[in-house]
Amino acid sequence: MTAPVDLVIRHARVAAETHRPAPGYPDLPRADTASRGGVRDLPGHSIGVSAGRIAWILPDDEVDLAALTDAEIIDASGLVALPGLVNSHTHTPMVMFRGAASDVPTAEWFNDHVWPMEVNLTDRDIRLGARIAIGELLLGGVTTFADHYFGMSTIAEEVEGSGIRALLADTFFSSEGAAGRERSAAFARDAAGSANGRITTALGPHAPYTVDDDDLRATARDAERLGVRIHIHAAENLTQTASSRSRDGRTPIGILHETGVLEAGALIAHGAGIVAEDAELLTAYADRVGVASCTKTYLLHAQEGTTPLRLLHDAGISVGIGSDGAAGSMTLDVWENMRLLGMIEKYASGDATWATSAHLLDLATRQNAEVLGLAGEIGALRPGLRADIVLVDFRTPHLQPVHDLAHSLALSAHQGDVTTVIVDGRVVVRDRRLLTIDLEEAVAELSERLPALTDRSHGRRVQDYAP
Amino acid sequence: MTAPVDLVIRHARVAAETHRPAPGYPDLPRADTASRGGVRDLPGHSIGVSAGRIAWILPDDEVDLAALTDAEIIDASGLVALPGLVNSHTHTPMVMFRGAASDVPTAEWFNDHVWPMEVNLTDRDIRLGARIAIGELLLGGVTTFADHYFGMSTIAEEVEGSGIRALLADTFFSSEGAAGRERSAAFARDAAGSANGRITTALGPHAPYTVDDDDLRATARDAERLGVRIHIHAAENLTQTASSRSRDGRTPIGILHETGVLEAGALIAHGAGIVAEDAELLTAYADRVGVASCTKTYLLHAQEGTTPLRLLHDAGISVGIGSDGAAGSMTLDVWENMRLLGMIEKYASGDATWATSAHLLDLATRQNAEVLGLAGEIGALRPGLRADIVLVDFRTPHLQPVHDLAHSLALSAHQGDVTTVIVDGRVVVRDRRLLTIDLEEAVAELSERLPALTDRSHGRRVQDYAP
Repeated sequence: MTAPVDLVIRHARVAAETHRPAPGYPDLPRADTASRGGVRDLPGHSIGVSAGRIAWILPDDEVDLAALTDAEIIDASGLVALPGLVNSHTHTPMVMFRGAASDVPTAEWFNDHVWPMEVNLTDRDIRLGARIAIGELLLGGVTTFADHYFGMSTIAEEVEGSGIRALLADTFFSSEGAAGRERSAAFARDAAGSANGRITTALGPHAPYTVDDDDLRATARDAERLGVRIHIHAAENLTQTASSRSRDGRTPIGILHETGVLEAGALIAHGAGIVAEDAELLTAYADRVGVASCTKTYLLHAQEGTTPLRLLHDAGISVGIGSDGAAGSMTLDVWENMRLLGMIEKYASGDATWATSAHLLDLATRQNAEVLGLAGEIGALRPGLRADIVLVDFRTPHLQPVHDLAHSLALSAHQGDVTTVIVDGRVVVRDRRLLTIDLEEAVAELSERLPALTDRSHGRRVQDYAP
Repeated sequence: MTAPVDLVIRHARVAAETHRPAPGYPDLPRADTASRGGVRDLPGHSIGVSAGRIAWILPDDEVDLAALTDAEIIDASGLVALPGLVNSHTHTPMVMFRGAASDVPTAEWFNDHVWPMEVNLTDRDIRLGARIAIGELLLGGVTTFADHYFGMSTIAEEVEGSGIRALLADTFFSSEGAAGRERSAAFARDAAGSANGRITTALGPHAPYTVDDDDLRATARDAERLGVRIHIHAAENLTQTASSRSRDGRTPIGILHETGVLEAGALIAHGAGIVAEDAELLTAYADRVGVASCTKTYLLHAQEGTTPLRLLHDAGISVGIGSDGAAGSMTLDVWENMRLLGMIEKYASGDATWATSAHLLDLATRQNAEVLGLAGEIGALRPGLRADIVLVDFRTPHLQPVHDLAHSLALSAHQGDVTTVIVDGRVVVRDRRLLTIDLEEAVAELSERLPALTDRSHGRRVQDYAP
């Protein structure tokens, strides 16, 4: 007897879940293939969804369809079902600046382009930007994102309307005085659990170079009081780590440690400047601290170094895949950032056996969920977890033939292959069409705002970049 | 009066053509923006196609539709038209091994996986592989590819049937004796100009480490006699350059120079081992020698170094974008390889102002055409050139808004955004569907062959990799 459900996905090849590769791989014996990660690959399976959660995953021929006459049936023949991807660090509204500041170095990007343009933002711009970004995320198979920006209440409304899941943090600087921190904490308190529980919250101090120690300490206390994590940019690159050290003798991660941010629980954005001594500090908080890599941003900005995957992996720290904002990375594409991280890791280490396809998929799904504090809720397809499910069309030449499902997903598929997206048991993308968002109007309205948005004649900026 | 045509593309935003960035950029003054390349961007234009060539490109309101009643009209509202992309180095049938040998280093990839598996190939496998690969290329907006493989007559038939354009070279090794070289020359002679001129040919010596000096000299003479170029793997990485030097005192490019291959005209595949002294040799033949980069392959195999774009650019040598075979790179995606080259160039040089978006598009279109010896025929949208045209759907959130068309195309678009593909004036992909190829049957047949194809129990290989 098959338990009754609301929705059944039939005839899928299910990439059900991944596991963390062993510490010390790839130096472990080659015969120990499991050490390099793996994907539980279930061809010819069906998934039953009930009340927003996965009820069961069964071989097609063990499903009693007669017991499921009330369920919606999705035929997934030729499709692969995988856990909804997570984007663990972005700034959704910044899609409004996509391509307005490319081919420029980091300091110029901040001081001469983005921070002057952000002076022009209205709440309406933030809404339209967030709407377009969420459309991009959903169409690309991302069912959960971690956002860090201004105007977060507006973004929360867009999350609610679109059906996506999100961890939201309202950005603040110490230059705002106490008001910034208090606003961020009030948002984290009030929005937590909204959108039928799809919204979780975090506190949003911008970075150790724009938020001082006192405010970081107060933020850590806020986090413990509210039971939320702290989403913060830190050790974004090695240059920042060096300048932090020379300024006050501590690394950015050292500052997070001393101010209690790590102990409270943190989503560290970037972390490309994390060094060996930092990893020792982080290890103690491996149950509540994760790092979101954003590899496309690092490469496009010609940054020195990328998020040190092997150091963090061996220290037991979860690493996620983020995109950063589209003003820097041009897309919010988790597939692309996952693949770039894998390729740059292989290239930089000179070891093609490191950063395996299975490992990359683990980062984009299970570890990403851990980075957001949502382990046990999302990040895998398993009975009891939230029904965040993506169907990928394998009936396309660039995905054929299939020798190894993990390689096909990690190295051949792209976000355009996503056909159907389900969040919390609700179909939000079907046949590559958004069911919950009208984008045409949003794009038309935002396009008219571009001259005003990119005006820099006022000579102001929201901050100075001097980390 | 608008001249009569067969086909009209209406209401397109036309990315008509690119130009080579100035030598010495980005060190030239920042105000000199043209030095970094540019894209001729024509919003609201129509393209008329007649007898396989572009007849005119006009603003929409200057087209007299009444004079064009016999023409097929394609509405390209919301779409961007760009020159068909070129893949300047691949081995199409190798899609059959896609994912059968990933996460392994180069020597192991050749000796333990690919060269043993290639022992199993039948002519039918080559046909099915080529068919799937051409489907992948066309759907991804590639209208011309340069192929290097065994069984090239079979591949030529697939080119003919599919409507794609190709430069084909039949691979040979010196280990085959004179028969290999003669077969490659006979193919180049007989197939040239076939498929209504869509097939051009080259000679296909595998590499300087598998084809000896005598055979390379004879190949150069064959090339001059037949009026074709030589497509050859050379200086694939710095390790090969070092071992070549220590073996006989010459670099791989030095060998091509001494044996007359450069003088005859060459498409050098990879060239990631090209060093400064090689660039001096190459400069003299800039009108007939180009290099095809295949960046995804280098990164996935953890290779030391990539095709040195800046060295070649400053030496005036055209650089193209290839994918290599899908056994190594997992896709035949020119968009992805173009973007990877740009990102790795920025990252490795530490200069975000180098490898601009406009430069990357120039590599994927105009310079790629030069690398294949097809300059003046393809690589731009300009009256008189072949009508190889790709339409990209910009009505999708990840391509909105548009601040700069070059950045959007080079850094945000992906191959799934291609909706319509025209080769030689003929529509071969419409609404993301192949009109000339039945893939379903080919995939089903090839999938049944996988156990036999991947069998390595025979203990043989087609060559030994010891460059």
